[in-house]
Amino acid sequence: MLIGKVVGSVVATRKDEKLEGRKLLVVQVHNHRNEPTEQYVVAADSVQAGIGDMVLYATGSSARQTHATENRPVDAVVMAVVDSWDLGGDNVYEKWSGR
Amino acid sequence: MLIGKVVGSVVATRKDEKLEGRKLLVVQVHNHRNEPTEQYVVAADSVQAGIGDMVLYATGSSARQTHATENRPVDAVVMAVVDSWDLGGDNVYEKWSGR
Amino acid sequence: MLIGKVVGSVVATRKDEKLEGRKLLVVQVHNHRNEPTEQYVVAADSVQAGIGDMVLYATGSSARQTHATENRPVDAVVMAVVDSWDLGGDNVYEKWSGR
Amino acid sequence: MLIGKVVGSVVATRKDEKLEGRKLLVVQVHNHRNEPTEQYVVAADSVQAGIGDMVLYATGSSARQTHATENRPVDAVVMAVVDSWDLGGDNVYEKWSGR
Amino acid sequence: MLIGKVVGSVVATRKDEKLEGRKLLVVQVHNHRNEPTEQYVVAADSVQAGIGDMVLYATGSSARQTHATENRPVDAVVMAVVDSWDLGGDNVYEKWSGR
Repeated sequence: MLIGKVVGSVVATRKDEKLEGRKLLVVQVHNHRNEPTEQYVVAADSVQAGIGDMVLYATGSSARQTHATENRPVDAVVMAVVDSWDLGGDNVYEKWSGR
Repeated sequence: MLIGKVVGSVVATRKDEKLEGRKLLVVQVHNHRNEPTEQYVVAADSVQAGIGDMVLYATGSSARQTHATENRPVDAVVMAVVDSWDLGGDNVYEKWSGR
Repeated sequence: MLIGKVVGSVVATRKDEKLEGRKLLVVQVHNHRNEPTEQYVVAADSVQAGIGDMVLYATGSSARQTHATENRPVDAVVMAVVDSWDLGGDNVYEKWSGR
Repeated sequence: MLIGKVVGSVVATRKDEKLEGRKLLVVQVHNHRNEPTEQYVVAADSVQAGIGDMVLYATGSSARQTHATENRPVDAVVMAVVDSWDLGGDNVYEKWSGR
Repeated sequence: MLIGKVVGSVVATRKDEKLEGRKLLVVQVHNHRNEPTEQYVVAADSVQAGIGDMVLYATGSSARQTHATENRPVDAVVMAVVDSWDLGGDNVYEKWSGR
């Protein structure tokens, strides 16, 4: 999994029927030091994540292992909202710090 | 999933029998700010996308989760035509804007 | 899928038994403008492609969806010989043009 | 698989129910000469690895082949703690050397 | 698949039980002209490959299609020892040439 920030969402009316009702989030990938990268992914939402949330996303067939995505043609899913992470004992991100 | 623009199509007469009748689109990948990149993919079409459409495509085993691609040797599928997306509250792409 | 040119083949006597009789092609990846890249892949052949042919190959579990590759330990398959493709209305490659 | 060092962990309260009780490690990828790279991955833990451990991780559907990760939406798993490895006859890493 | 050279092996005592008895090889990826790259992978062995052997390896779910790797948490397998390959009619590598 990689960590990213939800920065937007995609609207698509004409789509495969299995995508009906799935929210599609634009996630900008951050590195382990919480610096934004140029990499992004569009991921289905399984945890009602919102704009600005730091999230974890899974890709490939693993992205179809949630109730929201089972058997659907999605190759990325947001399956957790990140509260915090640390590196070498230092807190890198803390959701409730207002950062 | 990633966002791309349909820029062409591929014709192949000699092919695996499971590819019969599948339209193969050349999709140029765009980044989340809607700038074209040098990356491209050839994807099977499941939503009758046309040249110039902005689309979402899925890769890997997830690309076989549409009726058009089930059990077929394709590792990428266009499964949605994008109407619009936004980043940080700003509209990045709007299909009907004539842009 | 990506487009590539068949530039060689690999011979291997000591191999997993499921690879017996599978032809292994060296494919050099081309970009969508038909320029060769530095990327290559070794792919099983399912369409009797030959040296010099422009082909489509699929990767991952999708590479096991042809009769030639089912349940075999191959992660790439050549599953179509390309006749032609176009970009923005212009013909980029035409098999029979002698190019 | 790739080799990496466990450098941190991620806390997430709001997550897919199948992630309950799974420890999520931040792993920094090392190259084969044991030099840290800029690449990282968040991986589920199946071997009770700790901070500072050199580990092997697997990705994709293979990451769901341990008891800790079966059918769960995780695309990376730490499935071994590395004791040592060698390159060209030279020991590159030795857990018990205090290095 | 990609071609690589077996340059080492990894020892791990604490590991998922399904990895017991699997030899884990360090493989340095070579390009199609047989030049070593900076890319490497740790792969399970299914053909008793040895240090110095040029090999083919498969990744992803395809890596679990050998007897040695079925249902195991490995995402790469060495499934062939390369005897030779050619490019554009020229022999690039020949195992028995002493090169």
